[in-house]
Amino acid sequence: MPLLVMKFGGTSVGDIARIENAAKKVQAEVARGYDVIVIVSAMSGKTNELVGWVEGTSKLYDAREYDAVVSSGENVTAGLMALRLQEMGIPARSWQGWQVPINTTSAHGSARFISIPRENLDAKFAEGFKVAVVAGFQGISAEGRITTLGRGGSDTTAVAFAAAFGAERCDIYTDVDGVYTTDPRISPKARKLDRIAFEEMLELASLGAKVLQTRSVELAMRYKVKLRVLSSFEDTDETSGTLVCDEEDIVESKVVSGVAYSRDEAKMTLIAVADRPGVASAIFGPLAEAGVNVDMIVQNISEQAAGHSGNTTDMTFSVPINQVERARKAMEAARAAGIVSYSDLVEDTEVAKVSVVGIGMRSQVGVAAKTFAALAAENVNIKVIATSEIKISVLIDRKYLELAVQALHDAFELDKA
Amino acid sequence: MPLLVMKFGGTSVGDIARIENAAKKVQAEVARGYDVIVIVSAMSGKTNELVGWVEGTSKLYDAREYDAVVSSGENVTAGLMALRLQEMGIPARSWQGWQVPINTTSAHGSARFISIPRENLDAKFAEGFKVAVVAGFQGISAEGRITTLGRGGSDTTAVAFAAAFGAERCDIYTDVDGVYTTDPRISPKARKLDRIAFEEMLELASLGAKVLQTRSVELAMRYKVKLRVLSSFEDTDETSGTLVCDEEDIVESKVVSGVAYSRDEAKMTLIAVADRPGVASAIFGPLAEAGVNVDMIVQNISEQAAGHSGNTTDMTFSVPINQVERARKAMEAARAAGIVSYSDLVEDTEVAKVSVVGIGMRSQVGVAAKTFAALAAENVNIKVIATSEIKISVLIDRKYLELAVQALHDAFELDKA
Repeated sequence: MPLLVMKFGGTSVGDIARIENAAKKVQAEVARGYDVIVIVSAMSGKTNELVGWVEGTSKLYDAREYDAVVSSGENVTAGLMALRLQEMGIPARSWQGWQVPINTTSAHGSARFISIPRENLDAKFAEGFKVAVVAGFQGISAEGRITTLGRGGSDTTAVAFAAAFGAERCDIYTDVDGVYTTDPRISPKARKLDRIAFEEMLELASLGAKVLQTRSVELAMRYKVKLRVLSSFEDTDETSGTLVCDEEDIVESKVVSGVAYSRDEAKMTLIAVADRPGVASAIFGPLAEAGVNVDMIVQNISEQAAGHSGNTTDMTFSVPINQVERARKAMEAARAAGIVSYSDLVEDTEVAKVSVVGIGMRSQVGVAAKTFAALAAENVNIKVIATSEIKISVLIDRKYLELAVQALHDAFELDKA
Repeated sequence: MPLLVMKFGGTSVGDIARIENAAKKVQAEVARGYDVIVIVSAMSGKTNELVGWVEGTSKLYDAREYDAVVSSGENVTAGLMALRLQEMGIPARSWQGWQVPINTTSAHGSARFISIPRENLDAKFAEGFKVAVVAGFQGISAEGRITTLGRGGSDTTAVAFAAAFGAERCDIYTDVDGVYTTDPRISPKARKLDRIAFEEMLELASLGAKVLQTRSVELAMRYKVKLRVLSSFEDTDETSGTLVCDEEDIVESKVVSGVAYSRDEAKMTLIAVADRPGVASAIFGPLAEAGVNVDMIVQNISEQAAGHSGNTTDMTFSVPINQVERARKAMEAARAAGIVSYSDLVEDTEVAKVSVVGIGMRSQVGVAAKTFAALAAENVNIKVIATSEIKISVLIDRKYLELAVQALHDAFELDKA
């Protein structure tokens, strides 16, 4: 029997009526002849409520107890979904992580999968059960404790089950109807993509397009799981949403697939850093230890230009705006400890990042030039540039964010299929 | 190390502040040198919310899924309690039913204990853990599914752990400070009892004194677990609350310990029932099948008195008022099927039950006479009488309920220690 994995996020199972609506989508796939593994999140708001209780109870909480508490939201929706499917006459049962079992590492709060043995679920499918409803986001450690996978973990659970059970596809039902060329709230010309390559989706996910969790895309890419993003609030069929797939499955790809952005960035520059071998690790080691997520890094040999004396350099990097203070303290501590020397630390918290993403860049030249030209035509000053094989990112003044996204969307004609 | 079981009900763990308050009571016992097994209920209101969702999802719900859903509330409080204790510096961890494991029958929604192996918890106590926080109300079946014990199941969990681990005592923390001679809302003279025998508590629990769940008292009596009821909202010490214990541990017992009542009763009388062998089972069999909880039963041979022709009898019984319709339908169906014959079914839904309970009745005569005299002195008419070895119950007009309770409380001088 062909098998599908269907994942419903928190808003898609936010109340009894929405669970019923999601169950109807499962029913439709069963009617098409599929066995289905349904992965559910907690009702929207529930996990936050549970996290709030944990944090209200204990400041430095035991991550094992945190996991035992916050995993309960998914158990509730798994049971309710199984009940709703039964009510529709579909043989179904719920599975908590330890019942499957979903074996994970003991890294509580951010556990990783070790194995998902198929025996128990396969036996139930063989008995005639059509649907296994699995609580997302959780697993069990070798010590028999409940683990969780971290935020967005239910997407990852869905992909892991699709890989383990050789599912034909993994459908991620959410509150948007697919992946767009850019954020429709910024550009009314944004167009839904029918297909997008894993690599592109990864860049978009990590750049702030909050449709899919990065780890789930990585996992899907590694195991070649066809991932589909579609809306749980609209009528859907086999052609709905956006398919995230191997680039070989994309018949005609454009050079650029989308324009992503990240609003809450900050630029930090260390002035006149003593330039010697190992200086980069002397800076970014302490930042990593402090839990700062450094994104773009640019180093300028600038002793002449800035009039520095001796062998110094300026080091610029970007961090999420809410980590600026943490980053500054880490740098000041490193300077005080003699690990790094610099004359000044300049912060610019009024910046945003805009990125152009597309696998076509690999074979096509001139994308960078076109990007810079489009921004120059709108008088948008570029503060930092970073590139990868399939991405060009620029840091600009935040006030130009919408303008820059629209200009790039137009320049690459993303509104046209 | 001596061991205590401490159980906290839903109101006692109703929010973060109350969990902290309960944790302080655990801390005090640890300071006295005890290892402690804490049994927690769900936060008050949570189980009802979960039950509401189940019933809203599926009318004829699968009890296995019901259990998977409603058991989650206890898992949350178990984790939070463990976190709070850790925050106080006490080595503690939470245990869900399947982790202990608490082995039960597969009777989902009303499962019974099979075994509670000590190995896992004992190993943790041996490692230096002082407190095991166990989610009440739940267990695991041989099939690996989550089970629940039915309403009030956390009391039963507490007693079962006290029996399995040879606890010195099982303390039930609740929103009242003990067991009273009668309901203080009805009689201001009601007095808290220091001790009460298991048998008396059983009669009081089943008669509507909602302090302890009947099954937990039965279990405590069978395994001779000393059970203490005390308030989680007051300062308590080793002498607080009411100890429910073996009657041998009660030094000087009074003839009567308490006056219980049940307000929502109904009296049903089948008139001119054909009196032949097996007629009682012909009546009460169908009632039991319909799920009617018949309490008192009186049969009058009344052909002369009521002017009946032939060999007939009147059969009177009492049921909870909300089961009257179900009982009537069961009787009408039995009559239509020729299982039983009667001329009329008379219902009186304006009655209440008052009961006098005391182990001293076994050796003391005249309690019944004193009971009837006290009611007669207040002109309270008795409609049905039923007695057991340690109890006299009467059915009276509901409007006299308060009057009757007060009169009996006075007659047996229950306000005096």
